[in-house]
Amino acid sequence: MRLWGGRFSKDPDQLAHEFTRSLPFDQRLAEHDIAGSIAHVRMLGHCAVLTPGEARKIEAGLERVRAGLSSGELTLDPESEDIHTEIERLLIEQVGAVAGKLHTARSRNDQIALDLRLFVREEIDSLRDHTAALQRALVEVAEKHLDTVMPGYTHLQRAQPVLLAHHLMAYFFMVQRDRDRLAECRKRVDLCPLGAAALAGTSFPIDPSFVAKQLGFDGLCPNSIDAVSDRDFILEFLADAAIAAVHLSQLAAEIVLWSSTEFGFVRLDDAWCTGSSIMPQKRNPDGAELTRGKAGRVFGNLMNLLSVLKGLPLAYNRDLQEDKEALFDTADTVSASLRVMRGMVTTASFDTQRMADALSAGFPTATGVADYLVRAGLPFREAHGIAGQIVQYCEKEKIGFEQLSVEEWRSFSAEFGEDIVKRISPGGAVAGKVSPGGTAPPQVKDQIARARKLLES
Amino acid sequence: MRLWGGRFSKDPDQLAHEFTRSLPFDQRLAEHDIAGSIAHVRMLGHCAVLTPGEARKIEAGLERVRAGLSSGELTLDPESEDIHTEIERLLIEQVGAVAGKLHTARSRNDQIALDLRLFVREEIDSLRDHTAALQRALVEVAEKHLDTVMPGYTHLQRAQPVLLAHHLMAYFFMVQRDRDRLAECRKRVDLCPLGAAALAGTSFPIDPSFVAKQLGFDGLCPNSIDAVSDRDFILEFLADAAIAAVHLSQLAAEIVLWSSTEFGFVRLDDAWCTGSSIMPQKRNPDGAELTRGKAGRVFGNLMNLLSVLKGLPLAYNRDLQEDKEALFDTADTVSASLRVMRGMVTTASFDTQRMADALSAGFPTATGVADYLVRAGLPFREAHGIAGQIVQYCEKEKIGFEQLSVEEWRSFSAEFGEDIVKRISPGGAVAGKVSPGGTAPPQVKDQIARARKLLES
Amino acid sequence: MRLWGGRFSKDPDQLAHEFTRSLPFDQRLAEHDIAGSIAHVRMLGHCAVLTPGEARKIEAGLERVRAGLSSGELTLDPESEDIHTEIERLLIEQVGAVAGKLHTARSRNDQIALDLRLFVREEIDSLRDHTAALQRALVEVAEKHLDTVMPGYTHLQRAQPVLLAHHLMAYFFMVQRDRDRLAECRKRVDLCPLGAAALAGTSFPIDPSFVAKQLGFDGLCPNSIDAVSDRDFILEFLADAAIAAVHLSQLAAEIVLWSSTEFGFVRLDDAWCTGSSIMPQKRNPDGAELTRGKAGRVFGNLMNLLSVLKGLPLAYNRDLQEDKEALFDTADTVSASLRVMRGMVTTASFDTQRMADALSAGFPTATGVADYLVRAGLPFREAHGIAGQIVQYCEKEKIGFEQLSVEEWRSFSAEFGEDIVKRISPGGAVAGKVSPGGTAPPQVKDQIARARKLLES
Amino acid sequence: MRLWGGRFSKDPDQLAHEFTRSLPFDQRLAEHDIAGSIAHVRMLGHCAVLTPGEARKIEAGLERVRAGLSSGELTLDPESEDIHTEIERLLIEQVGAVAGKLHTARSRNDQIALDLRLFVREEIDSLRDHTAALQRALVEVAEKHLDTVMPGYTHLQRAQPVLLAHHLMAYFFMVQRDRDRLAECRKRVDLCPLGAAALAGTSFPIDPSFVAKQLGFDGLCPNSIDAVSDRDFILEFLADAAIAAVHLSQLAAEIVLWSSTEFGFVRLDDAWCTGSSIMPQKRNPDGAELTRGKAGRVFGNLMNLLSVLKGLPLAYNRDLQEDKEALFDTADTVSASLRVMRGMVTTASFDTQRMADALSAGFPTATGVADYLVRAGLPFREAHGIAGQIVQYCEKEKIGFEQLSVEEWRSFSAEFGEDIVKRISPGGAVAGKVSPGGTAPPQVKDQIARARKLLES
Repeated sequence: MRLWGGRFSKDPDQLAHEFTRSLPFDQRLAEHDIAGSIAHVRMLGHCAVLTPGEARKIEAGLERVRAGLSSGELTLDPESEDIHTEIERLLIEQVGAVAGKLHTARSRNDQIALDLRLFVREEIDSLRDHTAALQRALVEVAEKHLDTVMPGYTHLQRAQPVLLAHHLMAYFFMVQRDRDRLAECRKRVDLCPLGAAALAGTSFPIDPSFVAKQLGFDGLCPNSIDAVSDRDFILEFLADAAIAAVHLSQLAAEIVLWSSTEFGFVRLDDAWCTGSSIMPQKRNPDGAELTRGKAGRVFGNLMNLLSVLKGLPLAYNRDLQEDKEALFDTADTVSASLRVMRGMVTTASFDTQRMADALSAGFPTATGVADYLVRAGLPFREAHGIAGQIVQYCEKEKIGFEQLSVEEWRSFSAEFGEDIVKRISPGGAVAGKVSPGGTAPPQVKDQIARARKLLES
Repeated sequence: MRLWGGRFSKDPDQLAHEFTRSLPFDQRLAEHDIAGSIAHVRMLGHCAVLTPGEARKIEAGLERVRAGLSSGELTLDPESEDIHTEIERLLIEQVGAVAGKLHTARSRNDQIALDLRLFVREEIDSLRDHTAALQRALVEVAEKHLDTVMPGYTHLQRAQPVLLAHHLMAYFFMVQRDRDRLAECRKRVDLCPLGAAALAGTSFPIDPSFVAKQLGFDGLCPNSIDAVSDRDFILEFLADAAIAAVHLSQLAAEIVLWSSTEFGFVRLDDAWCTGSSIMPQKRNPDGAELTRGKAGRVFGNLMNLLSVLKGLPLAYNRDLQEDKEALFDTADTVSASLRVMRGMVTTASFDTQRMADALSAGFPTATGVADYLVRAGLPFREAHGIAGQIVQYCEKEKIGFEQLSVEEWRSFSAEFGEDIVKRISPGGAVAGKVSPGGTAPPQVKDQIARARKLLES
Repeated sequence: MRLWGGRFSKDPDQLAHEFTRSLPFDQRLAEHDIAGSIAHVRMLGHCAVLTPGEARKIEAGLERVRAGLSSGELTLDPESEDIHTEIERLLIEQVGAVAGKLHTARSRNDQIALDLRLFVREEIDSLRDHTAALQRALVEVAEKHLDTVMPGYTHLQRAQPVLLAHHLMAYFFMVQRDRDRLAECRKRVDLCPLGAAALAGTSFPIDPSFVAKQLGFDGLCPNSIDAVSDRDFILEFLADAAIAAVHLSQLAAEIVLWSSTEFGFVRLDDAWCTGSSIMPQKRNPDGAELTRGKAGRVFGNLMNLLSVLKGLPLAYNRDLQEDKEALFDTADTVSASLRVMRGMVTTASFDTQRMADALSAGFPTATGVADYLVRAGLPFREAHGIAGQIVQYCEKEKIGFEQLSVEEWRSFSAEFGEDIVKRISPGGAVAGKVSPGGTAPPQVKDQIARARKLLES
Repeated sequence: MRLWGGRFSKDPDQLAHEFTRSLPFDQRLAEHDIAGSIAHVRMLGHCAVLTPGEARKIEAGLERVRAGLSSGELTLDPESEDIHTEIERLLIEQVGAVAGKLHTARSRNDQIALDLRLFVREEIDSLRDHTAALQRALVEVAEKHLDTVMPGYTHLQRAQPVLLAHHLMAYFFMVQRDRDRLAECRKRVDLCPLGAAALAGTSFPIDPSFVAKQLGFDGLCPNSIDAVSDRDFILEFLADAAIAAVHLSQLAAEIVLWSSTEFGFVRLDDAWCTGSSIMPQKRNPDGAELTRGKAGRVFGNLMNLLSVLKGLPLAYNRDLQEDKEALFDTADTVSASLRVMRGMVTTASFDTQRMADALSAGFPTATGVADYLVRAGLPFREAHGIAGQIVQYCEKEKIGFEQLSVEEWRSFSAEFGEDIVKRISPGGAVAGKVSPGGTAPPQVKDQIARARKLLES
């Protein structure tokens, strides 16, 4: 069955048919298509474009198709062109020729735009839930580690001591932005395109607001040409997803790094590792590696659709069919990655002793040495220079700051007093970072409190 | 001059220096860096980290550096490492060693984050102005063409008659989404990262809110580790710009198409064409071609930064330096493309006769034939089939709908009456599309009224 | 069944299992995996690592698995981790515990590298056939149109008359480069990685050359660490495919353009068009639109894998699993696009009259006017200026060159003689372009002859 | 000065001029443009299109322009449209109106194609030199470390002991493929497009082979339409560069990782590190981080040009102007990254003690335990399981394999003999991996010998 063909003298070439049909992937939209059709046919009845009897009959038929597909009593014909054609075919089986009236005042152009908007809206809601779940996991682990001091890194070099809780809360706020962006994208998704028909609107006396209300949309697309050609809402979703995938890849990369024997900061639960077919000792953080890698496909999907849309004239072009697989794959990938990261974070054990040990080398409190001198009145640049010389001296002697005597400190600057020792302890350094957003325990507790509020709202 | 080096036994290799320094491009941030430093030093004075005299002296010096760079009295040393180092060098020339105190409680990590946020905020405001200017141009041309009927296209095939005004308003609403997205991105840009220092916060008793207020920020970054590593605000800006570039490329591609002799719908003003060095007859729409092409670089810049950030561990890594050129290039490209499109649209002449002529071939009112039969009670699918047969017949006879007699119409379906003739005229077809957002003149006027309101708000 | 787990205290989390397993897509490599295993086990027998009996038994079992999967008697367990595990499970069913010996001196790391190389080699051969088929179609149509003159375009403006054959042959040579690149890529694919085992090589006395010979490889991977981590051969394949996709998108875009009523240069066969569900007159070039659009996914797949591989440390990381779907999708997409373009080109009708008519407007022979004056001794720049003025005059008078009298020609330059009329005819212009590679019929015939030779070799 | 304008009634808008002109970046092609023009004018003289005197005069003028630009006596007018226009303007200053004859039988379309081919050819030669230099550095360091055993990693987990030399040689062979790909790309670059003129060829009796020979080209572009629109050679160069950038990013990422205190495998020379403006202890591997990050821009440039070219109709479109900045930036980035990596590798110190120590934890010789049992006749799967249990036991006891008594070994399997102790030493494990390409010293020496040969050829 095809929804067109009156003017054609022959059937499509088999290869052409295979190449152009979308059922293999757009069947995922069956539910959305039926929901949209039910709202549409109710409106046609409401507006007297169809008789009440026709509308009721078609709606009942659509419900039976929905139920049949759900129960498996009805199945899609794998050879069909697309989900719209296929649902109509099944509807005809249920209600006969009156099914043909469903397409009144509607085209596949506005119909697919509707299906996609319903799908994206649903996925946004789902992803927002999954981001919140990951955030909750991060907060919970952070709360357990308000006393755990570890090296903060820049350039992958030990930089300054920070709380593990502080580090984890950085991810909380990264993910919060992802959740916020999705919420804003949703506003632009939440408009109903029906009524645009092929591109110019329709001459049937329809009421698109009725449909919009049925489907819970916030409003109508303002311009019918734009309504059928617009895929911004997918692009924006893919872009938001790509930024989220960056964050997930970063968290994943740190899990990989921290799981190495060299770092040893984290030990993943056995349920979240896999082994090797040849090396019996291996505990591989595969889920984290894959989360890191899968960011690539999310980027690729974005690049795909940007390239597809570039330079396309208005209004609908068949190129737009290429939006679906990129969309589905991105939604699935980010959803799974969020859940995997949540599972890993929740079940991981952090080796706080290794973290503490890691602070004894690499001079992560050297900034405190410079700051000490600045408080004593030296310009920062000069203080920084002296601290650098002390590091160089310790490296040569293969000792840490804590092994320097006060005399040795004073040999570099007369400003050093006894209290230098405490100031360069990791705990002392952390406690001192009291600027808002800083790593001192009260500041981190503030962040957690703020996070709790964001999760509740 | 370098801001570090106390522990180093030798200078960087010349190649290493060339490879890592950023002055050749980050000099663009000189103004932002000075503005940030002035706010910072005022705060240091306010919080008594510096004496009032020190703070005043440094601020005055910074003002002199700003004035000197602006007037050309001072020049940047092209060999310097980055703009922060270079501003500090110039400041030392002005005020001596006290300049070193400017870096108290600040690192280049939070400083560059601040500079970039100031820059992006400024660019967002500028791009929002340029999008509004393009929108105004579109509305003005649309208002002149409320009577101009042209073929609307799908698949680049003539589909249905639409108003030129309707077509142009589609672009209005596309660009409106760009403007809205930028406004939402701005909220996430508008947070002050200062106080994060290297990554952990600072132990000096500073007041970051004071700085934020001075610089007009809406709030503070909530987590210092995130504050120095976050480049989401650039990613989001690049993504918003990429979607805007898609729209511009589409408008540009239509201008190229419509400027062809084959379409002939538009004639660009001589001031917006260029000629050929070898073909004297050429009037090439180079500005439109380049706008179309330049979307590629905007996509590339987004892909660049996504790849850079993927899998980076916290906090600052030098890879982040790669954010700047992509950012600058995207801001400049989209800004120029918006202005070029505005210039072209404003000065172009639309050939309304060619548009009208184009409606006489290709059967763009065939949908109306089907709709006619549907109103007479036929299911849409059957009506569609009959209309397809009439098209096939006319094509064989090489005639248009308007040359069919009523008898001929009736030979396809007894439902056709005398009024079919009027219904398949382009004007009649357009007038009938009264659904909201449709192409009937009152609907398009509604869109224009809505647009005017959006521009005023 | 899992190929690891001795040291694990619990099973993987169900979500972790779903997330990490690859069977849903790597089952496509079943044939390649079995072929590789057969070669491997023969070698193990040949080298006496296994007894002749063991080797024979395993090989026979593998053959039965192959036959069983092919006939449908055996089916893959959809819950299995990957194709290697699954083939081994089926093998155990056939031959019992001896199956475990198949994995001697081999790891999944070198095994998957082998499977992928076999797959890519096969796909290259197939794509090279399909490119040749498209080239053949182009040559055949070109040969029919050695007399068809049409406008050549630059900037989508009519530039100079060219032969349709010449235009089509441009695509021939573009595709030829694709075919050449694939051949060169094949050389780098055609190396056997077996023997690398996990990454370090193996201590079993194996003979990788024996395996390589069995599988028709040209040589061995030179370094075992590189052998398991190298995915260059996929990257290069994806990049070659992306360039090919650019060419296909360009050909497709021209088919879309030429199918428009405005251009009207080509009419696709009914078997290669699709209609509209709402607009009965439509004949949409969907196959061409999709080919154009599908370039986006090919680019996206490339970007995906580049991002995945960036910054990965040696040797194998699980991120590499992300190579497969991108590879499969690209191979399928480019293969189908090549076949679709071939089908369209072969069956299309070119409207030579429309092409001829298109030469009567737009002054595509103006370059000839300038060249005429240059031959008479004027510097090109001056000649170009005069020709430009004549165009401007004709545009104002709304006439073509052919309507100018000799007196009018001479009013612009005394150098014009009677022969100018012939020189500015499209046929005359084409005939004159005798430079190698030019559009004069003998030159185009030379190109066709060269093309025939390339196809034969 | 503009090379066109005869038919135009006004000058371009200033914004249009700014937007479309390319001199700010194509000035980099000045040398190539002059070289091409000299070859062209010689040919025009040789073919008697110009008189010998004219040709000599123009050539001499071009030589003076070249010399003048090189010495700084002549400068480019920054307001000029492009490098071709600007060179012609300077030529007119030198030789007067005869300069206008240089453009005979040539268009900017074939001229820019020529300039770009000359540029890319040169860059390929230069990059091939730089890749060879990096390879030489790798071989030299490898030769020094034929005795250095370190952990090989998979999944960033210690996997099996390998030689540092073996690890470095993996990079050698990766880079070798880059060098090979560039050589093959060069063949497609090395064709002369001159004679194609605007797109159709030229009617002047020219000899393009003469030009090709002058400029050292291997042949002529076979089709003039393709000659002016083809940018494959840039795409392929960008793709080859992207793969090379992947390799460089991987090497760089390992340097970053190995420079961490946790790994501590390498210490970069002071000349190749940079410090922190705030943290005096820092020695940051900035050059490596930037090399890793800069892969992003190389990917972005490729994505840029792919997007630009997608769907462009033949022949020249102004969009093509966007090829240059992407090309220049990629060539510069990869060149600098290669040189930086070479500098870092050459001067780095490898901490062989840390590497050795790293082998004492993480059970990297567990595969050898399994292999031991396989040799004793157990199927691999069973052997693997036993080895896994031993690892689990040792982990629980917090001991290494070397601390197990033979009795303990035997408690897991009766097959273990006294020699197990030697077999699971790192040195023993490495020595055993004698398969071709494996990590045993003789195999690695073979690789080095092969590498030396490749470098000599």
